[in-house]
Amino acid sequence: MPQDKLWIAALGGVHEIGKNMYFLQVGDDIIVIDCGSKFPDESLLGIDLIIPDIAYLQDNKDKVRALIVTHGHEDHIGGIPYLLKQMNIPLYASRLTLGLIEIKLKEHRLLRDATLHCIDADSVLTFGPVTTSFFSTNHSIPDCLGVVFDTPEGTVVHTGDFKFDMTPVNKQYPDIHRMAEIGTKGVRFLLSESTNAERPGFTPSEQLVGAHMEEAFKQADRRIFVSTFASNVHRLQQVVDAAGLTGRKLALLGRSMVNVVAVSKELGYLSIPEGMLVEPAEAAKLPPQEVAVLCTGSQGEPMAALSRLANSSNRQMEIHAGDTVLLAANPIPGNERNVSRIVDNLYILGAKVIYGSRSELHVSGHGSQEELKLMLTLMKPEYFIPIHGEYRMLHHHRLLAEAVGVQGDQIFLLKNGDLVESAGGVVRQSGRVTAGQIFVDGLGIGDIGNVVLRDRRQLSADGVLITVITLSQADGRLLNEPDTISRGFVYVRNSDTLMDEINQLVKATLQKMSRADLEQWNIIKQTLKDSLSKFLYDKTKRRPMILPIIIEV
Amino acid sequence: MPQDKLWIAALGGVHEIGKNMYFLQVGDDIIVIDCGSKFPDESLLGIDLIIPDIAYLQDNKDKVRALIVTHGHEDHIGGIPYLLKQMNIPLYASRLTLGLIEIKLKEHRLLRDATLHCIDADSVLTFGPVTTSFFSTNHSIPDCLGVVFDTPEGTVVHTGDFKFDMTPVNKQYPDIHRMAEIGTKGVRFLLSESTNAERPGFTPSEQLVGAHMEEAFKQADRRIFVSTFASNVHRLQQVVDAAGLTGRKLALLGRSMVNVVAVSKELGYLSIPEGMLVEPAEAAKLPPQEVAVLCTGSQGEPMAALSRLANSSNRQMEIHAGDTVLLAANPIPGNERNVSRIVDNLYILGAKVIYGSRSELHVSGHGSQEELKLMLTLMKPEYFIPIHGEYRMLHHHRLLAEAVGVQGDQIFLLKNGDLVESAGGVVRQSGRVTAGQIFVDGLGIGDIGNVVLRDRRQLSADGVLITVITLSQADGRLLNEPDTISRGFVYVRNSDTLMDEINQLVKATLQKMSRADLEQWNIIKQTLKDSLSKFLYDKTKRRPMILPIIIEV
Repeated sequence: MPQDKLWIAALGGVHEIGKNMYFLQVGDDIIVIDCGSKFPDESLLGIDLIIPDIAYLQDNKDKVRALIVTHGHEDHIGGIPYLLKQMNIPLYASRLTLGLIEIKLKEHRLLRDATLHCIDADSVLTFGPVTTSFFSTNHSIPDCLGVVFDTPEGTVVHTGDFKFDMTPVNKQYPDIHRMAEIGTKGVRFLLSESTNAERPGFTPSEQLVGAHMEEAFKQADRRIFVSTFASNVHRLQQVVDAAGLTGRKLALLGRSMVNVVAVSKELGYLSIPEGMLVEPAEAAKLPPQEVAVLCTGSQGEPMAALSRLANSSNRQMEIHAGDTVLLAANPIPGNERNVSRIVDNLYILGAKVIYGSRSELHVSGHGSQEELKLMLTLMKPEYFIPIHGEYRMLHHHRLLAEAVGVQGDQIFLLKNGDLVESAGGVVRQSGRVTAGQIFVDGLGIGDIGNVVLRDRRQLSADGVLITVITLSQADGRLLNEPDTISRGFVYVRNSDTLMDEINQLVKATLQKMSRADLEQWNIIKQTLKDSLSKFLYDKTKRRPMILPIIIEV
Repeated sequence: MPQDKLWIAALGGVHEIGKNMYFLQVGDDIIVIDCGSKFPDESLLGIDLIIPDIAYLQDNKDKVRALIVTHGHEDHIGGIPYLLKQMNIPLYASRLTLGLIEIKLKEHRLLRDATLHCIDADSVLTFGPVTTSFFSTNHSIPDCLGVVFDTPEGTVVHTGDFKFDMTPVNKQYPDIHRMAEIGTKGVRFLLSESTNAERPGFTPSEQLVGAHMEEAFKQADRRIFVSTFASNVHRLQQVVDAAGLTGRKLALLGRSMVNVVAVSKELGYLSIPEGMLVEPAEAAKLPPQEVAVLCTGSQGEPMAALSRLANSSNRQMEIHAGDTVLLAANPIPGNERNVSRIVDNLYILGAKVIYGSRSELHVSGHGSQEELKLMLTLMKPEYFIPIHGEYRMLHHHRLLAEAVGVQGDQIFLLKNGDLVESAGGVVRQSGRVTAGQIFVDGLGIGDIGNVVLRDRRQLSADGVLITVITLSQADGRLLNEPDTISRGFVYVRNSDTLMDEINQLVKATLQKMSRADLEQWNIIKQTLKDSLSKFLYDKTKRRPMILPIIIEV
């Protein structure tokens, strides 16, 4: 590769929501931005987590100079342990972001060996020919950074996630002046996030939530449970403030809530009055009007605190009639059913439940169309790469960019792995590097692929039927009755007749086979599969996985 | 049971959306209202359909006088074939409803023997001591009826599904005068549907959709594809009208679209100009600006027409760049992800896509809070039973009823199977009948229960591992190496070492067992399961189903 070309690519985060990972490369220097994870949808049976494929970085390990992390959300940090296990590159992030990454690295026993650098909006870093600086943005977590790369091929700006909240809860304002300055100096490439590109208008300020939270606290005459994203430290602060205002102690339920509160309190991002925090066991003994509880599970996760409260299976606290439950988060698409089930169960317990978009207990952390246009206008990029979104979001972001004057042919809608190249000022989309999704399942990373998933899908829908036949080593004759069992196919206790029929069919099928075929196990197995699957489908309209096993004695 | 008691119950439809089925019983006369089905959520692996448990009706077969069907939606008619197979009771429904039921009965080869009666809003039927009459409502399908039962214990009104659309597309007005009259005469029990009880305000008229549809047709300069619920005949009419206005021929894609259009056209509910309908093959040859296509799949169903168009796998037509696609239906909760994936794919194909609530190409067929209050006010019921909804909807409907003056202790929030009894004017909730969900899987009805589903869940998450050991009948010694295979657990081609380790462990486990234990196959199997599952979990953090099989030769 000639020394001075600039390459930009996504390894994750376009054509999807989640596992954000981008890099830029100038000659022999690669800088990586973010390394997120993504939760599997229900079609990925048994998969725990999805992370980006980092094959390209592994093949170019000696060139990777840094991992810069824009903020501490899972879709930007969730893949870091898996990356650092492969290549222990220096990591740069702001204070809270680092705090959250450290929790993760500790769990993976990687903390001791990691090289972590704390940066802020005023940091300037040099990696080979690239000078890297930052600007403050705001989002649904504190300490977010946009990143500016000054390269020999011009300036590349990566926004991270952002909104323009002019009245932020923590006084961390979006640094519009700095952004304007960057734009004035000239931006060659802008990579800007697209989450809300379909949404008209301007995302409301987090303070709106505070006002409704306070109102809900004032109205409640018994205990209050608030469920929200643990990482939304602004919102946690507003819950703390409302609790303070109404004279309530605060208990925490759920591991990530306990972790995030500890880190953000310790680092000074969350201010909790002395004595307000109590253990759940203690809270359970206090008069109900003196208790507020912050809990995880706002997305309906079946094992999280809110789900357990709604099922009366939380070991630490329970919901009583008259308690108030605030769902201060909107369900992410795909989670609606689980969240609705929780609301139903809470009502059945007699709770007052405040939920849904009309409650205004949630605002998005992502800028809407007017804010995306504001970013585009501030940066005035020559070339634009919408990132961080499903295709329809990238598409709408492109329309917005065109509306504020970016040339249509200077906008790149990339797939993960697509390279944009700038060489001597000539910019074009050019080639690809490996990109894709790696499945984490238990301790396995990347061992589960389409074959295993296809098997799981078949097993999940119609179960499995195993038939063991025992053949004589001497003369190939059937030594035993076939032994057939099934799981997940039919109710075993009622299926004696069916199993008998199957065994008869197995014997009949073997009898009909030629001597030559009977010597080839693959042919025996395939013949049994074909005849059993036809028989079972005619009989049940189900297609279990059929596994003939041959034992030779 | 004393002769004159009145019982009312739901066999399906409360604490859920779907499989609506209610009955009332006066002495020895049972009248059933609706018999719907429900689609399984993703946790019910492999299940095709859910229908109500009709055990109570089967036990009282000789008392069941009639099935009255309020309208032709799946959640009100989908269970009818399964009910009629069990008891061939007379069925009463309006013309279009009957037409849609007939399609179903034909598919199940039940049409010839079924006793079908066509009724309308002026019909009066007598079943034992119960006089049954009807009133017109409107909803997202024509020919909807509310039902009035005059019983010795007073009048029972069942609303069916309704909204108050004062400007309906088909001029089928809600008969407010009749409703007022019923209310004036006195209603003892009102059963009213609760779908939109959480939604403030008044649901917009279907005509709103027509205006936006027309606008979208005028804007489109190439082909137009419209996807909506096939049963929404009003909306189909508006698509026909817009096609007529813009000089387009109309093609139909998807079996249920073809069926519903045929039935509604034949019965006069859908008016399509002569020559407008063309076959898809013909439409594919016409100039793009002269073509409109109505297709199924608005809920993102993977096998339906819209999904196939978006994947370029529809055999009859394909989407070209510049075509317009209108999604004239909102995703039902749980379907958001599939619908979004289709939108992405359509954009990738270069289509213009109009979708989402802001497009106003969809209005609900269910009345919002003001309409529910209007119904309650018209009927002035003494007792109120909110039906047709998840618990949170019933709960909000109760609040609405209280707001318009129904006494809180005269409102019953039932579970399926709960009986409300009126005996000599004394009303109380009293006892239960059997109620529940029956799973349809292939040809099996009710054979799949929790055991099979639990197995499918385990199989789906971590697959199956089968180990066959062959023991000597003579002395119980192991005759062969154990034979171990797995599916859905690990990638088989990379797992030779693991399978060897498992076989070693099986042998070692058997060696450690006492002679006495080795004579008991259950103990052998359990011991192998325990040791393998511990080994595999430590090694992989996965929990496949472990199936030891013992062969004795």
